[in-house]
Amino acid sequence: MPEVISAIEAVDVRFPTSLNLDGSDAMNPEPDYSAAYVTIRTSAGEEGYGLAFTVGRGNDVQVAAVRALVPLVAGMPVDDALADLGGFSRRLTGDSQLRWLGPDKGAIHMAAAAIVNAVWDLRARREGKPVWRLLAELPPADLVDLIDFRYLEEALTRDEALSILRAAEPGRAGRQAELLASGYPAYTTTPGWLGYSPEKLATLASAAVDEGFTQIKLKVGADLDDDIRRLRLAREVVGPDVRIAIDANQVWGVGQAIAWLRPLAEFDPYWIEEPTSPDDVLGHAAIRRAVAPIKVATGEHTHNAVMFKQLLQAEAIDILQLDASRVAGVTENIAILLLAAKFGVPVCPHAGGVGLCEMVQHLAMFDFVAVSGTRRDRVIEYVDHLHEHFVDPARVERGRYLAPDRPGLGARLHPESIARFRYPDGPAWRAEAPVVA
Amino acid sequence: MPEVISAIEAVDVRFPTSLNLDGSDAMNPEPDYSAAYVTIRTSAGEEGYGLAFTVGRGNDVQVAAVRALVPLVAGMPVDDALADLGGFSRRLTGDSQLRWLGPDKGAIHMAAAAIVNAVWDLRARREGKPVWRLLAELPPADLVDLIDFRYLEEALTRDEALSILRAAEPGRAGRQAELLASGYPAYTTTPGWLGYSPEKLATLASAAVDEGFTQIKLKVGADLDDDIRRLRLAREVVGPDVRIAIDANQVWGVGQAIAWLRPLAEFDPYWIEEPTSPDDVLGHAAIRRAVAPIKVATGEHTHNAVMFKQLLQAEAIDILQLDASRVAGVTENIAILLLAAKFGVPVCPHAGGVGLCEMVQHLAMFDFVAVSGTRRDRVIEYVDHLHEHFVDPARVERGRYLAPDRPGLGARLHPESIARFRYPDGPAWRAEAPVVA
Repeated sequence: MPEVISAIEAVDVRFPTSLNLDGSDAMNPEPDYSAAYVTIRTSAGEEGYGLAFTVGRGNDVQVAAVRALVPLVAGMPVDDALADLGGFSRRLTGDSQLRWLGPDKGAIHMAAAAIVNAVWDLRARREGKPVWRLLAELPPADLVDLIDFRYLEEALTRDEALSILRAAEPGRAGRQAELLASGYPAYTTTPGWLGYSPEKLATLASAAVDEGFTQIKLKVGADLDDDIRRLRLAREVVGPDVRIAIDANQVWGVGQAIAWLRPLAEFDPYWIEEPTSPDDVLGHAAIRRAVAPIKVATGEHTHNAVMFKQLLQAEAIDILQLDASRVAGVTENIAILLLAAKFGVPVCPHAGGVGLCEMVQHLAMFDFVAVSGTRRDRVIEYVDHLHEHFVDPARVERGRYLAPDRPGLGARLHPESIARFRYPDGPAWRAEAPVVA
Repeated sequence: MPEVISAIEAVDVRFPTSLNLDGSDAMNPEPDYSAAYVTIRTSAGEEGYGLAFTVGRGNDVQVAAVRALVPLVAGMPVDDALADLGGFSRRLTGDSQLRWLGPDKGAIHMAAAAIVNAVWDLRARREGKPVWRLLAELPPADLVDLIDFRYLEEALTRDEALSILRAAEPGRAGRQAELLASGYPAYTTTPGWLGYSPEKLATLASAAVDEGFTQIKLKVGADLDDDIRRLRLAREVVGPDVRIAIDANQVWGVGQAIAWLRPLAEFDPYWIEEPTSPDDVLGHAAIRRAVAPIKVATGEHTHNAVMFKQLLQAEAIDILQLDASRVAGVTENIAILLLAAKFGVPVCPHAGGVGLCEMVQHLAMFDFVAVSGTRRDRVIEYVDHLHEHFVDPARVERGRYLAPDRPGLGARLHPESIARFRYPDGPAWRAEAPVVA
C-alpha cells in the first residue's frame, strides 16, 4: 500500500487585530487578520501545513473554497504528488468546474495556494530542509518542470527560464553561505499604520532605525494633509538615509494618484505601493511614467502570473511584491520570480498578515541563492505581530531576516493558538468582548 | 416602520447537463450548469430574484460567498436601497474585510452580482417594468449616478458618460418602438459544442439557419484537425453569408492562438472568442494585431470594469462580451456599456448557462435604446436549454430575442425546478444515476 494523502483539513482561525488598529490602512480600517489554515495528513502519519491569509469576514468562504478543492487530490499517492508538484498544482487550478469561480483568481485560487503550500511544506519536512534550501538545491531542469508556461511563453520561454537558473548555478553555494551568515534585508511596516497617532508613529519609526532597519513604510491615502504631516514627521525622525516607502492600498484613481503624490515628493518617498486598482496594469504604467523617480510597487493583490507578466511587459512597476498565498503558492511564485529576473525587476515580497513573513522569506531567499543571485535593492516586508502563534516564527535581527534552518515552509501554527482563535467557537471569540491577540 | 430587506436567501441549484455534453468545450468538457440562486424578501412581502452562474463543483462556495455578503445589506430600508443602487452595489463590493477575497473578482464578486441583480429585479417588479425599460427610461443623470468612476475616469469621465446618454436621449422612444416591433438579433451556440458528433453539428447548424439565425458559434481548440473538419463542415452547411464565430475558451497561449488560427482563416471565422487567458489584456492585443481580419472577442470571464477598460484602451478586442453575473450585476454593467460606447466597440453579450439569456438581454436592449443607439453588428448569444425552468423565459423567434414585457430581470426560477434540482438534496441528485434535466 503506497502512502497516500489521507486528509486535508481546513480551519477558520481569526485574530481580533482590529481592537488595536494594527494593520489599519486607507482601504482596510479594521482588519481581523485571519487564516484558512490547512493541514495535510498522510496515511503514514506525516503532515504538511499551509494557509490562505484573509482579513476577517469571508474567512469562512475561504475555508469553503479549500474544502471544495480537497476531493481533487485526496487519496493521491504522496510520492506521485511530491514528484510532480507542477502537475499537482495544475490539478488544483485546472479543474474544469471549479476554475469557473476564478479562473486563477480570488478565493478559489487562494485555496489552491493554501494546499500547494502545505504540500511543499510536507515535502520539505520529509527532506529535512527549509523550503528555501529545498528549492535552491533543485536542478534547474526540475525547477523549470514545475512551471506552466502556457500563458507566459511570449514573455518567458522554458529555455530562457533554464538559462537564468543555469547562470545562477555556479554561485549557489557561495550565496547560500552568505545568506546563512548575514540573512536577508527586511523593512518594517510596524510604525506606519494609519490608525496610529503621530507620537506612536515617531516612537516606532525611531525604534525601527535603532533596531537596524534601513527602510520603513507608511500608509497613506486617507487625507492628504495628514499624509504630508506624517511623512514630514517620519522623515525628520529617520533622517535622509533611511528609505520611506508609502502605501495607498488601492484607494486612488490614476489621475488622483498622480496629483496626490506631487506634494509628497519633497519627502523623498522611495516607492508608492498599490496606488490604484491592482488589476490596472495600464494605470500603473501611467502612474509610473508620471511620478518618477518615485518607484511604483504592487503585487499583494496581483492574482496570478499572467497579471505579473503584463505588469512587467508594460513597464508598469519598479518593484514586484509577490505574496505567498495570493497566487497558487510556491509553484506559481517560482514562475513569478523567473519573470521578474527576466525583466530585471527586483522582488520585494509582501508580508505581515498571518504567516506571510514565515512563508515568503523562503521565496526571497531562494531567489537570492538560485534565481536573481542578488539582494541588491531587495527587502522583505516585516511586521512584528502574531509571530508568537507559529511553531517556527520568522526571526528578524538588526533589520534582517535570519535564514530559517528548520524543515518546512513555516506556516505551522501552535495547536493552542488554533484552539484559542478558532472562529467562531474559540474562547477568544466566545467572550463578550474578544480577548486581544 | 419602513419596509426593509428582511431576508436574502441563497440556494445551491445544479442541472446535470454533463450527461448530454451540452455546454462542452475545450476548457469545460463536462459542465453541470448551476446557480447560486438568490431571493431577496422584504418586510412587506415583496421579492426579487438573482443568481450567480457556475458550472457545477464550487457552486456551494458561491452560495457561501453570497451568504457572507448578506449581513452588509440585511435590514436596510428598501426605499434607501432602491433610491441609490450605486451605493448599494458599493456597499457589497467595498466591505474592507470581504474585498480581500477579490477585490472585485472571483466568487465574492459574482456573489455581489447575484444580490445586485436581485435588487434590480425587485425594483423593476415594483415599478412594473422589465429591467431594460426601467433603465432606458431613467434620466441620464440618474444612470451616471450609479457608476463608480474612481478606477475608470482616465478612460471615461462622468461628463463623457453623460454626453453619451444625452446624445441618445432624443431617439429613445423611436428605438423602443423598433425594439418592440423587431426584437434584438441573436446568435446560437447550440450547434457547436465540442462534444457533439459531425452529424449533430451539421443537423443543428442547418436547423439554426432555417430558424433564421444569421450567426452560429463553434467551439474549437481541442484538436486542430478536428477544428478544420468541423469548421469546413459548418461553412458548407450554412453557406458563405452566415457568420461563424469560433470560441477557444482560453486554452491557447498567445503564440499558439496565432498559429492555430492561421489554417482556420480560410473558413472565414467571424470572431475568435477567448483565445487565451481572460486576464491577458496585452496578449489579446497581440493576437488581435496578428489575426485580423478575424475579430477578437472576450468578456465572459473578464472580472470587472477595470479589466474591460484596459481591453478597450489597449485596442485588444473588436467585440465586448459582457456577462450578467460575472461582474457586479446590472450596476457595473452600465459602466461597461458606457465604456464600450465611448470606445466604439460593439457589445455582444455572453449568455447560455443558467438564466444568462434571461438576464443579459435586458442590458443589450437598454444599450440599444439608451446608450449606443444601434443594433448594428450586435448579437446576443442564445443557447436553447434550461429555459423551461424560468418563470419568464427568454423568447427567441426567427433568430431574434423578443423584448421582455414582464416586470423584472428574468432570473426567477419555478419553485418546482428549485425543489427538483436543489443540490445535493433534490430528487434529481438523490437518484443513483441523476435524472437528465
